Amino acid sequence: MQKVGILGGGQLGRMLLQAAANYPVETHVLEADDDCPAAHLCRYFVKGSIRDFDTVYNFGKSLDAVTIEIENVNIEALEKLESEGVKIFPKPSVLRIIKNKAAQKKYYSQHSIPTAAYSILSHRNEIALHQHLLPAVQKLAEGGYDGKGVEIIESLNDAHKGFEEESVLEKKVRLKKEVAQIVAVGQDGKTALYPPVEMIFNKDLNLLDYQLSPADISQKVLWKVEAIALSVVRNFGSPGLFAVELFVDENDDVLVNETAPRVHNSGHHTIEAHYSSQFDMLWRILLGYPLGNTKAIFSSAMINLVGSEGYSGPAKYEGLNDVLQIDNAFVHIYGKTHTKPGRKMGHVTVISAEKADLVHKANKVKQLLKVVS
Amino acid sequence: MQKVGILGGGQLGRMLLQAAANYPVETHVLEADDDCPAAHLCRYFVKGSIRDFDTVYNFGKSLDAVTIEIENVNIEALEKLESEGVKIFPKPSVLRIIKNKAAQKKYYSQHSIPTAAYSILSHRNEIALHQHLLPAVQKLAEGGYDGKGVEIIESLNDAHKGFEEESVLEKKVRLKKEVAQIVAVGQDGKTALYPPVEMIFNKDLNLLDYQLSPADISQKVLWKVEAIALSVVRNFGSPGLFAVELFVDENDDVLVNETAPRVHNSGHHTIEAHYSSQFDMLWRILLGYPLGNTKAIFSSAMINLVGSEGYSGPAKYEGLNDVLQIDNAFVHIYGKTHTKPGRKMGHVTVISAEKADLVHKANKVKQLLKVVS
Repeated sequence: MQKVGILGGGQLGRMLLQAAANYPVETHVLEADDDCPAAHLCRYFVKGSIRDFDTVYNFGKSLDAVTIEIENVNIEALEKLESEGVKIFPKPSVLRIIKNKAAQKKYYSQHSIPTAAYSILSHRNEIALHQHLLPAVQKLAEGGYDGKGVEIIESLNDAHKGFEEESVLEKKVRLKKEVAQIVAVGQDGKTALYPPVEMIFNKDLNLLDYQLSPADISQKVLWKVEAIALSVVRNFGSPGLFAVELFVDENDDVLVNETAPRVHNSGHHTIEAHYSSQFDMLWRILLGYPLGNTKAIFSSAMINLVGSEGYSGPAKYEGLNDVLQIDNAFVHIYGKTHTKPGRKMGHVTVISAEKADLVHKANKVKQLLKVVS
Repeated sequence: MQKVGILGGGQLGRMLLQAAANYPVETHVLEADDDCPAAHLCRYFVKGSIRDFDTVYNFGKSLDAVTIEIENVNIEALEKLESEGVKIFPKPSVLRIIKNKAAQKKYYSQHSIPTAAYSILSHRNEIALHQHLLPAVQKLAEGGYDGKGVEIIESLNDAHKGFEEESVLEKKVRLKKEVAQIVAVGQDGKTALYPPVEMIFNKDLNLLDYQLSPADISQKVLWKVEAIALSVVRNFGSPGLFAVELFVDENDDVLVNETAPRVHNSGHHTIEAHYSSQFDMLWRILLGYPLGNTKAIFSSAMINLVGSEGYSGPAKYEGLNDVLQIDNAFVHIYGKTHTKPGRKMGHVTVISAEKADLVHKANKVKQLLKVVS
């Protein structure tokens, strides 16, 4: 039986483990929090830091393969493991590109992959040298997540908000839509694309408001999205499951925003709405099986369930009964013991043949379901 | 968070736990084998005998609810737990009826539920007194499973094969079809029926050969199946998930064969082919949520994967790659370390709009996939 390790024990790890139980695989999880969502669904749990060289190396050295559910891991240890024959999917070389937003941008440029105009800065006073990029979004090269490490620089008047570390100053895209494209790459190099999804963001928390699948885009835009996402992924030269986030601008040009080399929030709907879910697909890749069927069975909407404002502490779920009354609403609670404002605590997927019905149900779920303490 | 215990840690427990991870529930499993299929997917595993009074009582006394994945449990302990306020679904009173095949037959008679003509015997020499029941099937009242504890008594010449313990002598039904009907009963008494499925048995191992869903039966037979299954379950007066196995005879009369008061082999296809699986449904019942949607998304075939003849030892799976190449074949390997001839090691569900395609794929799966050692 193959031994496979996951670095990180959050909800992505949890859903990976739910899918793993269908296959002959011995699962291992490394995570510092031994009450994390994935801690009790694996065969072997190791408590430790995914950012520490020795911890990651020791975790991986007796395994057949290692994957990640978060990018912020010790890449050097993964490189050593790879050199010793452990399969690391995505490859550490991909993680090096992805982990640093400046390196990621350079990668897109290098491979002629369309992305918003940008410059790489190390001081906020360099903003004045790049006025052609304004209004812009400035992103820390490393360490940003879920809205942290991101500043909007509308004009030079905002330059004082700029970062004093390595960062990407990126021209704001005149956004029509934001879409995500999941791509699977097998060990044999074969690829499979899920239909792209469309996202609507809640400006306050910078977390997904809800997501529609498939994205409502023209055939021409779909082709661009697929071609660009494939180009991003093929140039990595690595097996794995990748989520490419893209912007569609007012001229229907398509630009890569960023790429996650792992199962992703934008693929949660694949559990119920697709034949092979993103989690099932990653196991197929890790274990060397043929890729699964990425086709949609249903149109779907996916709603993230985040901790309500004003509540921090042991989590309670309000409205679960009402949501489970909705026809074909699939609830996923991640098993996090504590909530705080904006924390991802679960998600709900609704399926329907009608887009209007999906939007209606998505709004209903958002109104009914709350995480409090 | 509610605490729910499962007595037994086999594949049914494993699939229950895969579904449990969607809900806010603390899972507990009691099982003597600490490397059983369910041991590593629960929050708390307790090693111990499900047949021992103290073990079961101590396991259950701090839980909110307890369910079973096998009938052969200590009912007295469950009765004590129930009297102390722990929810036991199915109720111990149901287990008393089900566990003993003689009591089960009497229950059907008492509630005017059609079942094959029978008599309850305690010695094999009583067979001669019931010649009107021959040819018959004789079943041990307690302790039989998967073909053990069952004898075919074609004529008085076979009477020497009869049991010397309490048993049911049951007139052989002139069988047209064998079907199973799963019924869910919520804590509020609401019921929901899955479409019945149709089974074909492999005579050699007395294990399911493959199963088709929905059963190919007339509307009239469907109504009888549903009415009889509902009558079986409603008279139990217990929340839970029930699988009622029925015979359809040559005259299209419908007779109850037996009932399992738990998730069941005949409901495995509901994971992929139905909106709410039998496992999801039982959690909804245990946690007091509304019942799920029992409708089929697809027609399906389900193939049990059993240990091949001539192999005993650490399990190896041959043909997995080929089966995963089949469009929409969903593999479930139960994680049992050792195989032996006839042991249930996994199952495969295939979905399709066409019955002919299902039968073709089911046969392909049976030919391709083997468990050896």
